[in-house]
Amino acid sequence: MPRIAYFGPTGTFTEMALARFEELGIFDEPVERVSATNPPAALQLLRDGEVTGAVVPIESSVEGSVPPTMDALALGPRLQILAEIELDVAFTVVARPGTTLGQVRTVGAYPVAGAQVRQWLAEHLPAAEVVASSSNAGAAEDVASGKVDAGVSTALAGRRLGLDALADGVADFAGARTRFVLVGRPAPVPERTGCDRTSVILQLPNEPGSLVRAMTEFATRGIDLTRIESRPTRREYGTYFFHLDCVGHVDDALVAEALKALHRFAHVRFLGSWAAVSEHGVPPVSDDDDEKWLQQLRRGEEQS
Amino acid sequence: MPRIAYFGPTGTFTEMALARFEELGIFDEPVERVSATNPPAALQLLRDGEVTGAVVPIESSVEGSVPPTMDALALGPRLQILAEIELDVAFTVVARPGTTLGQVRTVGAYPVAGAQVRQWLAEHLPAAEVVASSSNAGAAEDVASGKVDAGVSTALAGRRLGLDALADGVADFAGARTRFVLVGRPAPVPERTGCDRTSVILQLPNEPGSLVRAMTEFATRGIDLTRIESRPTRREYGTYFFHLDCVGHVDDALVAEALKALHRFAHVRFLGSWAAVSEHGVPPVSDDDDEKWLQQLRRGEEQS
Amino acid sequence: MPRIAYFGPTGTFTEMALARFEELGIFDEPVERVSATNPPAALQLLRDGEVTGAVVPIESSVEGSVPPTMDALALGPRLQILAEIELDVAFTVVARPGTTLGQVRTVGAYPVAGAQVRQWLAEHLPAAEVVASSSNAGAAEDVASGKVDAGVSTALAGRRLGLDALADGVADFAGARTRFVLVGRPAPVPERTGCDRTSVILQLPNEPGSLVRAMTEFATRGIDLTRIESRPTRREYGTYFFHLDCVGHVDDALVAEALKALHRFAHVRFLGSWAAVSEHGVPPVSDDDDEKWLQQLRRGEEQS
Amino acid sequence: MPRIAYFGPTGTFTEMALARFEELGIFDEPVERVSATNPPAALQLLRDGEVTGAVVPIESSVEGSVPPTMDALALGPRLQILAEIELDVAFTVVARPGTTLGQVRTVGAYPVAGAQVRQWLAEHLPAAEVVASSSNAGAAEDVASGKVDAGVSTALAGRRLGLDALADGVADFAGARTRFVLVGRPAPVPERTGCDRTSVILQLPNEPGSLVRAMTEFATRGIDLTRIESRPTRREYGTYFFHLDCVGHVDDALVAEALKALHRFAHVRFLGSWAAVSEHGVPPVSDDDDEKWLQQLRRGEEQS
Repeated sequence: MPRIAYFGPTGTFTEMALARFEELGIFDEPVERVSATNPPAALQLLRDGEVTGAVVPIESSVEGSVPPTMDALALGPRLQILAEIELDVAFTVVARPGTTLGQVRTVGAYPVAGAQVRQWLAEHLPAAEVVASSSNAGAAEDVASGKVDAGVSTALAGRRLGLDALADGVADFAGARTRFVLVGRPAPVPERTGCDRTSVILQLPNEPGSLVRAMTEFATRGIDLTRIESRPTRREYGTYFFHLDCVGHVDDALVAEALKALHRFAHVRFLGSWAAVSEHGVPPVSDDDDEKWLQQLRRGEEQS
Repeated sequence: MPRIAYFGPTGTFTEMALARFEELGIFDEPVERVSATNPPAALQLLRDGEVTGAVVPIESSVEGSVPPTMDALALGPRLQILAEIELDVAFTVVARPGTTLGQVRTVGAYPVAGAQVRQWLAEHLPAAEVVASSSNAGAAEDVASGKVDAGVSTALAGRRLGLDALADGVADFAGARTRFVLVGRPAPVPERTGCDRTSVILQLPNEPGSLVRAMTEFATRGIDLTRIESRPTRREYGTYFFHLDCVGHVDDALVAEALKALHRFAHVRFLGSWAAVSEHGVPPVSDDDDEKWLQQLRRGEEQS
Repeated sequence: MPRIAYFGPTGTFTEMALARFEELGIFDEPVERVSATNPPAALQLLRDGEVTGAVVPIESSVEGSVPPTMDALALGPRLQILAEIELDVAFTVVARPGTTLGQVRTVGAYPVAGAQVRQWLAEHLPAAEVVASSSNAGAAEDVASGKVDAGVSTALAGRRLGLDALADGVADFAGARTRFVLVGRPAPVPERTGCDRTSVILQLPNEPGSLVRAMTEFATRGIDLTRIESRPTRREYGTYFFHLDCVGHVDDALVAEALKALHRFAHVRFLGSWAAVSEHGVPPVSDDDDEKWLQQLRRGEEQS
Repeated sequence: MPRIAYFGPTGTFTEMALARFEELGIFDEPVERVSATNPPAALQLLRDGEVTGAVVPIESSVEGSVPPTMDALALGPRLQILAEIELDVAFTVVARPGTTLGQVRTVGAYPVAGAQVRQWLAEHLPAAEVVASSSNAGAAEDVASGKVDAGVSTALAGRRLGLDALADGVADFAGARTRFVLVGRPAPVPERTGCDRTSVILQLPNEPGSLVRAMTEFATRGIDLTRIESRPTRREYGTYFFHLDCVGHVDDALVAEALKALHRFAHVRFLGSWAAVSEHGVPPVSDDDDEKWLQQLRRGEEQS
């Protein structure tokens, strides 16, 4: 039975993402879920060989990239993203049975979640003090243990702990979504589906224009960049890793060309090519006609 | 007496940054310090006219950009950065007098700080549970109130609350620094010093290559970009604000050219030009000789 | 009375171009026409102070740029283009009075002209031998002197020498046109008209990509390049002068920017800005709004 | 016996170039030389199937590209360049036996040659009239027939016609060289030698920046462009063919990439890849390591 780590405890959105991967049949057999206290810890279990995969959040439509996930992917032995899933993120405010909104004096919230429900709290619980919890599920645990009166959590976490929902679908920003990825150790890249995403982490030579040059390798080949983030290397102030996502698959000829071009002047950590959960840009054009034309040139058959 | 907001409570690194600005004589007269619970709240006090300036953290050498500060600068009426300061960031682990390391079962830490001392905690307090605090100074308050046994905090906060220091200079990454900025409402740009930083937030047309185009406006003029960050707009999934910092001042001719070039195809929010605290790249070349040459051309005096 | 050199003898298309400049009132007073045996000779008279202006052909719609003109502009003291004119170029085949097509055994033709009437000759004078003349007007002189039976010339030259026209409007390529320029010594640039052309000759550093860089200085500013030619420097094999024409005037802010940008890394010989005879591309956008926006930024007045 | 056309008559530099190709063993067997009156005529014989190859001049270090050759390569069925040779170009001034410099009143010269010996003529034959001849060898024929007193020609042409050399090695520009190419009908491209040249003619979409884009396809791949020329299409005023030469061979991976990239947005006429007669730039880098790295990525073997 494969063991898959996730950012837990039980009841987090990340566990829901793992459940979704299971439903989609990504794994051939039932899996054993292994909780980790944060995304880097989940990836460390994978590097240590304790698990065969890890599910972590990578990007939120409200909060942007998830720094601990990105930093943990950049450092240590290379890992590879195998699949992705997106979840609507709306919170459930939970409390012990019988508690009413009017009785709530303290609210536990994972800081990332607290930032996404600030307006709701200001409107519905203006007098309550917000206390930091260690995760969304942890907020429910803080309620169950009596540490806080209410918690910004998930429906699943509340149910498991026998809590009531004071409010459902709580989110300041309608349509908030978070993307989660399934990460494994390096392996043959999944097959091209035609709707794929490729991700790399670059270390660029310390020269003016080297980032523009890297991005130009995609732009001149008509490849859509969908995300670019700089993250400090933590080694030297002012030096960065650059995380780039593009539309397409390493088996798309032009994406392959772009990666090889980057490899000529930068250190490229390849994070994988995998099926994108939705259309997210214009797919790269095919190289087939161009290649056929070139072969005709070489053989002296091209006439025009 | 000018009122200046800062990310508090008293004893945070941000308050130390404000103190440093005072020492440097940035303000002509003594200031009244106004604590705010987080960086966006400090900037909101400024927009509301409650204060005349705000000090907030903007970038850490370990954790990268500070998302709440960046997002609060991007939304709402335009604000302007007037000055910057950098502080070495090393933490003090505080406890109630008489407490020894061996007695510590729970440690309060602001999550950003917790991430920077993870190795230290694993080594020196391997069995302690880490509990989230609301700021670095808040961790000391949590110790004083008995909520936790020890706190990852600042020396200043510990002293003010009469706590003992269990350890000083605690940091997993040697040389960690954080940059803080003084923000005001739009005003005439401070004079060029020759060692300046300019910052903008861009909203780009939704076209392939528009980010490369924006960056090329700097690259072709030999202007060093020192930071680039994308942040979700929170309006539509997959749309971003781009935060760009470059070396130079709006009064450097080439920087002025680049800003005008951006303005032709993008929405540009100018965050200001101000004296950089240290050399951080190659300053833009002067335009003086080129302008003189051009004037000679126009008058028919250029001979070669 | 100003003396103006032209590529003669009398009766050439270049003399017609000079006549057109006179009709258009370019000169304030009547001019004395001074014939020169080729375009470089006309420009040499100007450099020697023998004349105050020179009219030379610069580009043909059939034959492309006129190399002797371009090379003579590139070498020696700088000269400046002040105005341009375009003429339809169709030839008149002239002969001594009484001659019929059937009697023509030899045809004089300036080689450039011969290339433009090759098909006509093959059809109407298939048996005639083509003999090189020194100019279009020279072909008529060769007829008058009895050296050849017929000449590919101009109507004007034939009339002046009392020759008959065997055929008029002779041209293999319908709509052939040639552009002529009036050249002077360096002087204040003529005023911007809104429909202008600017021309430079570049000597680029011997580095890969320097020509692309030069062209990018125009492209990123949305300035249309209308002509690019490389010409050997004649000093070292494989080294070139690059002749570039663009739409716009040195008083267009973006053209001025581009010229200054070129000046930072290349040797730029400015050949002038002058009124274009016809629309020949998209004029550069105005910089006025951008400059106004920038000034508001500097004063702290820009709100968005 | 293969028939090879050349720009004649006998005694031209082009015939010397053909002789050099024969000496080098380019042809497996003796060839029959077929004279053509100009470069386009030589290429037309090839297109008509009258000959199997043609030798034409393509570039002079003094006069630049040879327009009739370039235009004839651009129009009509595609032809392919198979080989190149360079010749030092210095002229021999010939006269009938017994003639002295002092007796020369008229000098025959092919206009291209006349332009390269202008200073010599001004110094040594200041009073002589220059008369246009149809080729360098034609100038010797004009001397032999008594049409002119002396001719700017080649040593070979003078010898064949029994003329004397008044002067040898005549050239205003020391080290003048001309490059000649052997052209055939489309055939499999000659093998890569590591010191090759590739040539294309582009028709670009009528959009601002399309030429820069084309050149960037070479620049971003580190491929040296060695020549760029625009030539009017003769169809519409202001429309051009662009002739580009680069260092490298279609079997160099990066050159192949660049050609395919051009093919995606432009009409590309491939003129061939062939061994360059001398080092003329930096050869393109190899793609082997990058391709190996990419294959390792795909198989999950890349570790860093």
